[in-house]
Amino acid sequence: MPKSYRVRTELDAILSDLGEGDPVPSERDLALRFEVARETVRQALRDLVVEGRIRRQGRGTVVSRPKMVQPLQLQSYTEGAISHGRVPGRLLVGWDDVPADAGTAQELGLNGGEPVMHLERVLLADGERIGLESSFLPLARFRVLYDTYDPTTSLYAALRTLGVTLDQATERIETVLASPREAALLECTTALPLLRLHRCSIDRQGAPVEVVRSLYRGDRIAFEARLRT
Amino acid sequence: MPKSYRVRTELDAILSDLGEGDPVPSERDLALRFEVARETVRQALRDLVVEGRIRRQGRGTVVSRPKMVQPLQLQSYTEGAISHGRVPGRLLVGWDDVPADAGTAQELGLNGGEPVMHLERVLLADGERIGLESSFLPLARFRVLYDTYDPTTSLYAALRTLGVTLDQATERIETVLASPREAALLECTTALPLLRLHRCSIDRQGAPVEVVRSLYRGDRIAFEARLRT
Repeated sequence: MPKSYRVRTELDAILSDLGEGDPVPSERDLALRFEVARETVRQALRDLVVEGRIRRQGRGTVVSRPKMVQPLQLQSYTEGAISHGRVPGRLLVGWDDVPADAGTAQELGLNGGEPVMHLERVLLADGERIGLESSFLPLARFRVLYDTYDPTTSLYAALRTLGVTLDQATERIETVLASPREAALLECTTALPLLRLHRCSIDRQGAPVEVVRSLYRGDRIAFEARLRT
Repeated sequence: MPKSYRVRTELDAILSDLGEGDPVPSERDLALRFEVARETVRQALRDLVVEGRIRRQGRGTVVSRPKMVQPLQLQSYTEGAISHGRVPGRLLVGWDDVPADAGTAQELGLNGGEPVMHLERVLLADGERIGLESSFLPLARFRVLYDTYDPTTSLYAALRTLGVTLDQATERIETVLASPREAALLECTTALPLLRLHRCSIDRQGAPVEVVRSLYRGDRIAFEARLRT
């Protein structure tokens, strides 16, 4: 059994006895206790930071709050966060018409280059930056949102007010690293793995309503699906 | 607009015109074409390798095969791979009784320390290492598998033969970096983001059947859910 594996197993046991905000023993103490080099402990702690189990605080390290778990359902970020006891928020990054790229146009049933509304927002949970969401909607149908919609509120609630009932969606989940721009907006480093979700939602009449590309901090959030036969 | 963003956008456009296995223009040519430093191009190409869009081949870089997309359904890896036109395979890493840790025991309805069967396998798609799967099953109920089951075949098929009908599961998806051991088994680097899935499956009588912790290479696979209201 490699040293790194033993150290990780023992660290997991130590952390499971600690609560949120409790200080993690120092690198030096852990290296002595496990009888390994400090570098071995340092690497294990780095991995735990990336996984969101612990976080740096001042000169030390403390146990993190458990990851937020978002259900994989046809609901908005807002609704998911509330159901998990978090206070959702959004910061507007941009809201503009853009020409649809080939992929987005195809998913929305438009011709390439036709204008779409692009709404980009940072998603907050209890004031913390947790995700970056880009929504693309057919401009011709949803232009009215410019006059009626407050982009710091739930888009799905606004769509319901317009009489749009979402019926189904396809959602793809991948992992990527943050680009420098995304890292800046998410206040993380470019070495942090992110979850990238790509959703295309269809209304009850079968018309595509939105394409959403969102990025979530891998150290702060997990997604959960209920599978049935 | 930062340079890195423009370079990435232009590279995306170039790649979209290329097919699987086509050579990607050299760093030098791209730097000249985009009028940026070679380091800027190098970083963009590194990101595309991590995302699985391109891969190193010999001294150059070529366009990758598109990622494998696994449906998020209550089916085995085997069934998912076949439905996506890939030839599934498994390499046995280990198959042993272990004492259940506290979390696994709770999910399987056992007492902590009760023995569980632990089956660890590397998952292959068309001969390529794509995932690492650890399945934990209550030993008392499934000991017979030691006599009847070939661990390079589908576990779900073997369970069906035993009369077990899976009814539902909860599956959690996160992203993590590979540990040195996992990187070695997956033939990747420890800097590659992985998708970690945690599944607990229940049979038709409501009894927990398995806890599965699996890791998938983020550059080779994506998961897709169909969401309905």
